[in-house]
Amino acid sequence: MSETTPRGPAIILVRPQLAENMGTAARAMLNCGLTDLRIVSPRANPLDDRAIAAASGADKVLLSARVVEHTKDAVADLNRVWATTGRDRYMTKPVYTPREAAGHMRNLDSEGLRTGVLFGPERTGLENDDVALADTVLTVPLNPDYCSLNLAQAVLLIGYEWFQAGVSGSLPAMTKGWRDSGPAPKEKLVHFFEHLERELDECGFLRIADKRPVMVRNIRNMFQRANLTGQEIQTLHGIVHELVTYRHKKGKAESS
Amino acid sequence: MSETTPRGPAIILVRPQLAENMGTAARAMLNCGLTDLRIVSPRANPLDDRAIAAASGADKVLLSARVVEHTKDAVADLNRVWATTGRDRYMTKPVYTPREAAGHMRNLDSEGLRTGVLFGPERTGLENDDVALADTVLTVPLNPDYCSLNLAQAVLLIGYEWFQAGVSGSLPAMTKGWRDSGPAPKEKLVHFFEHLERELDECGFLRIADKRPVMVRNIRNMFQRANLTGQEIQTLHGIVHELVTYRHKKGKAESS
Repeated sequence: MSETTPRGPAIILVRPQLAENMGTAARAMLNCGLTDLRIVSPRANPLDDRAIAAASGADKVLLSARVVEHTKDAVADLNRVWATTGRDRYMTKPVYTPREAAGHMRNLDSEGLRTGVLFGPERTGLENDDVALADTVLTVPLNPDYCSLNLAQAVLLIGYEWFQAGVSGSLPAMTKGWRDSGPAPKEKLVHFFEHLERELDECGFLRIADKRPVMVRNIRNMFQRANLTGQEIQTLHGIVHELVTYRHKKGKAESS
Repeated sequence: MSETTPRGPAIILVRPQLAENMGTAARAMLNCGLTDLRIVSPRANPLDDRAIAAASGADKVLLSARVVEHTKDAVADLNRVWATTGRDRYMTKPVYTPREAAGHMRNLDSEGLRTGVLFGPERTGLENDDVALADTVLTVPLNPDYCSLNLAQAVLLIGYEWFQAGVSGSLPAMTKGWRDSGPAPKEKLVHFFEHLERELDECGFLRIADKRPVMVRNIRNMFQRANLTGQEIQTLHGIVHELVTYRHKKGKAESS
């Protein structure tokens, strides 16, 4: 991430219990271009072999993590903080989905303000005193009958939404792998239609005059939907040509 | 999930290598309300103890999984299939993001059509012959410098988007935990403003007449932003009252 790239939210793990989870959380962060990891009073060593192995190449996030004693130290420099929780806390705070939060984070980022997200210990979640340090609550809408996410997956969903909020203006191309010429100009497609229909007329497939227009339209629509490239149309010309040639050859062989 | 709930995409793990990953994928599915798991030629036993442990309560998804030998058997009853891949396959297929795919899945669901998503083996991803069985490619936009997702995380992101596409019309309330009366009617807030301003006038805080209107507005706006409940406003009345009473008591004590 360069200096000019939006930094995105700090990910703050509060009293995480397992080294593996710190590693997989770091991996999920880097997947989404996030690198600012803060760990409050970890119950295991975040630089433990198991953490590094679980980070699977994202160990630079673990190595640069800031370990602090109290949640208030972890949020000290942040302008806006979300607390992830699935339970009702009987506290009066706005609730955001990850998607809503991501939009706000991008806006705050662009104003030079810093954001962060608190994640609680694996078994118990955040304590109410941690939640009280946040402006807002963040809840992931998921299957109400089975909504427990592991730590790294919760981190991933927040990071994912943050990343998507930045790329939404530049979606990837709807097609890829055009090996040759890209979607063919329609002229080539029509040329193929005419070739095919000529052969279908000749072999008698389109012999019922009443039905011919509708059959031709159906066949054309089928190939239209396939969104063919020039190369593919060449292949289709070849297929039709070969089928006809074989028929002629076969016809000749049978008649000889 | 009841019979009338949209079924969502089948999740198809092609030649998965690790039992744990089948378990965590099942867990991610159930998080998102998905239960149709199909496994093509697994390299480990999906009912292995490690898989069941990793499923963390979502073992019913593993127990009902359909294990088949070939990818074509796994997609046989599906109307539309996405293949997850990050690499360019030099094949001409539309590319969808999970969000785009989720919208299509919901539409197809509502027409009674069945959808599915193919996920490749952990190390190598899908083979081109598997991809050729899919209508469309599904690629998750992530950090291009570090985009390897583990299997369960890839499943989670697809399932998450599918789930969100169904709840987007019914976002959770923007606030929660109103312990008492919900956001207070403005009358109560104005009553508090008047109480506060009366005391601020009395103690001299608002003594500069020129600045009074702007100061009052600033103070009012500050409390407006806090989106207070009736109970909280009562608390604020109490705070002001106590501060004033203490001042009076202190004043009396000092003057005595």
